[in-house]
Amino acid sequence: MEKRIYNFNAGPAILPEEVLQEAQENLMALPGVGMSILEISHRSKPFDDVINQAKADIKKLLDISDDYSIMFLQFGASLQFSMVPMNIMPPKNKADYIVTGSWSKKAVKEAKRVGAVNIAATTEETTFNRIQKQDELKLSGDVSYVHFTSNNTIYGTQYKSEPEVGDVTLVCDASSDIFHKKIDVNKYGIIYAGAQKNMGPSGVTMVIYRNDLLERSSDDLPTMLNYKTQVENDSMFNTPNTFGIYIIGLVTKWLLNMGGLDKMYETNKHKAGILYDCIDNSNGFYKGHAEEDSRSLMNVTFNLPTEGLEKKLIAETLYAGFSGLKGHRSVGGLRASIYNAFPTKGVEDLVEFMNDFQAKNS
Amino acid sequence: MEKRIYNFNAGPAILPEEVLQEAQENLMALPGVGMSILEISHRSKPFDDVINQAKADIKKLLDISDDYSIMFLQFGASLQFSMVPMNIMPPKNKADYIVTGSWSKKAVKEAKRVGAVNIAATTEETTFNRIQKQDELKLSGDVSYVHFTSNNTIYGTQYKSEPEVGDVTLVCDASSDIFHKKIDVNKYGIIYAGAQKNMGPSGVTMVIYRNDLLERSSDDLPTMLNYKTQVENDSMFNTPNTFGIYIIGLVTKWLLNMGGLDKMYETNKHKAGILYDCIDNSNGFYKGHAEEDSRSLMNVTFNLPTEGLEKKLIAETLYAGFSGLKGHRSVGGLRASIYNAFPTKGVEDLVEFMNDFQAKNS
Repeated sequence: MEKRIYNFNAGPAILPEEVLQEAQENLMALPGVGMSILEISHRSKPFDDVINQAKADIKKLLDISDDYSIMFLQFGASLQFSMVPMNIMPPKNKADYIVTGSWSKKAVKEAKRVGAVNIAATTEETTFNRIQKQDELKLSGDVSYVHFTSNNTIYGTQYKSEPEVGDVTLVCDASSDIFHKKIDVNKYGIIYAGAQKNMGPSGVTMVIYRNDLLERSSDDLPTMLNYKTQVENDSMFNTPNTFGIYIIGLVTKWLLNMGGLDKMYETNKHKAGILYDCIDNSNGFYKGHAEEDSRSLMNVTFNLPTEGLEKKLIAETLYAGFSGLKGHRSVGGLRASIYNAFPTKGVEDLVEFMNDFQAKNS
Repeated sequence: MEKRIYNFNAGPAILPEEVLQEAQENLMALPGVGMSILEISHRSKPFDDVINQAKADIKKLLDISDDYSIMFLQFGASLQFSMVPMNIMPPKNKADYIVTGSWSKKAVKEAKRVGAVNIAATTEETTFNRIQKQDELKLSGDVSYVHFTSNNTIYGTQYKSEPEVGDVTLVCDASSDIFHKKIDVNKYGIIYAGAQKNMGPSGVTMVIYRNDLLERSSDDLPTMLNYKTQVENDSMFNTPNTFGIYIIGLVTKWLLNMGGLDKMYETNKHKAGILYDCIDNSNGFYKGHAEEDSRSLMNVTFNLPTEGLEKKLIAETLYAGFSGLKGHRSVGGLRASIYNAFPTKGVEDLVEFMNDFQAKNS
């Protein structure tokens, strides 16, 4: 078998080895079906079993009540940036957006095509290095919803708990930290997430949708962009991304087998802790981009004393078989994306490498 | 290895065994990359190679000039039903649609949300059993484009050559027969196709787009639905369906290895001929739904003397390991979908089975 290396990429990202193995084993033909998951009809019994099991496991993982529907859509969180306002901004045509990074800004841009957007807060002036405190939020009150991004891949910041918005509908882009811990879904109107970081391959967007919001969707919307169509047709108005949903099903099964999301959260805290400890104990050689209480468990961003050293470290990690550590251009430095599927051993090995690099270069 | 059966499903549909084998072999890690195609960044060199090779092979297969861009989008042909009019119906806000089946009708429904639609012809009154002749078309002339569906999966009809529309932009939904033969792309403004019939798994829509049309796209469109965004960002404004594009790449490579589309067309004519001969030589026991000169090479639809016999035949084929032969409810009877990847041997075995069934039941 081809040797596998450490995959620190921000997304598409590492998947559990057990998931890849099962997918590989059955790729020519699903057991008892005689056809590949890539070939079976989305209207068939075998696929019904796949999608229903995936939904049931997601409901179990996040303890989701029947007040919510789970959809598997396509075209990324980026299409949700439009679908959310198109469907639920009317009739008020106003929404609050909390801006914590590039993705929030993109969401704002699309929402503005539909109605009025109030920026409840932004931390752009400090290169999005922190999550706003509750008392910094300028919430309007009389809006259709409040939107936030739970984790910011580029800047390495993350909400510890969701913003409090009273009776207003809360909408969350959870693309980069869905399933990293248990959240109280009942606090949300909509949670959407591209699959390609913590759930599966690219090409599927999961949407958890509180059913009472469906009445806001106008029949004048393009059919595919209408949440009502998607919920009423169980994500199968047209052909969904069958393979992507199958992999999400394998990932959710893996999460349940690992002990569920509380267990995963413990592992994630431990795993990220190893890396943040290395940064904090480096006497300033490594400097985290995010403020301490805003640090992400999924994406650890940090800089070195000089850009030259950053380049050198990145080059050496690549040579050593660590992929994807180069930081996003807007922050520079390094970024280690350590989603659920990333092994603790990989973080330990990186830390050993970083300590070694510091000893040799400071 | 799990035994594979004959897959006559209309889509998602059979893929070449060589394609599945290569995908399986490399699913844990792409050679020389150390990560799965499901895990690598869409901004990485290995994925650049994948998408660029796929595009180059598609250009080669269909002899596409640089006047055209190839996009890999998502959410199916069904989203193209909206994207086409949203982007290119203005400023005239009028289009002609030729209606040959359920999919054309759905395309009309979405176009009507954007502007005026003239139905240039429809064969609904005879359950879409044929393609209109050129002189039946009531083309308006002064419209933004003419839209047609090249192959109709449900009814088993197919265009032998595209309708003539003069200087008007021609738009084609080729979801169910793309790559079945060589077509003259220069006659078209836009060709779009969901991948899940003749190209790959579900979750990718290929769009071949004549670049001069881009100027019609308004900047007010939702970013993801704007062809200009997609072309300018090379289908990577956000994360594309990386795995789906990889499989399309393997399928196009397979087509080139098989001798290209002229060779594939010969095989398709031969393959479908075997089945139509069986129908035509059955003394009316099997009755094709489509009129003879409108017959599809991709989907062969036929009925039996009674519904009871149809049910019996379907049950027996299932038992014998032929999957997906039940016709769509709007036509009843049987439908054999025999796309590029479907083996000639499978058609021969089905015909043997049908002859045998006729002998026993007539």
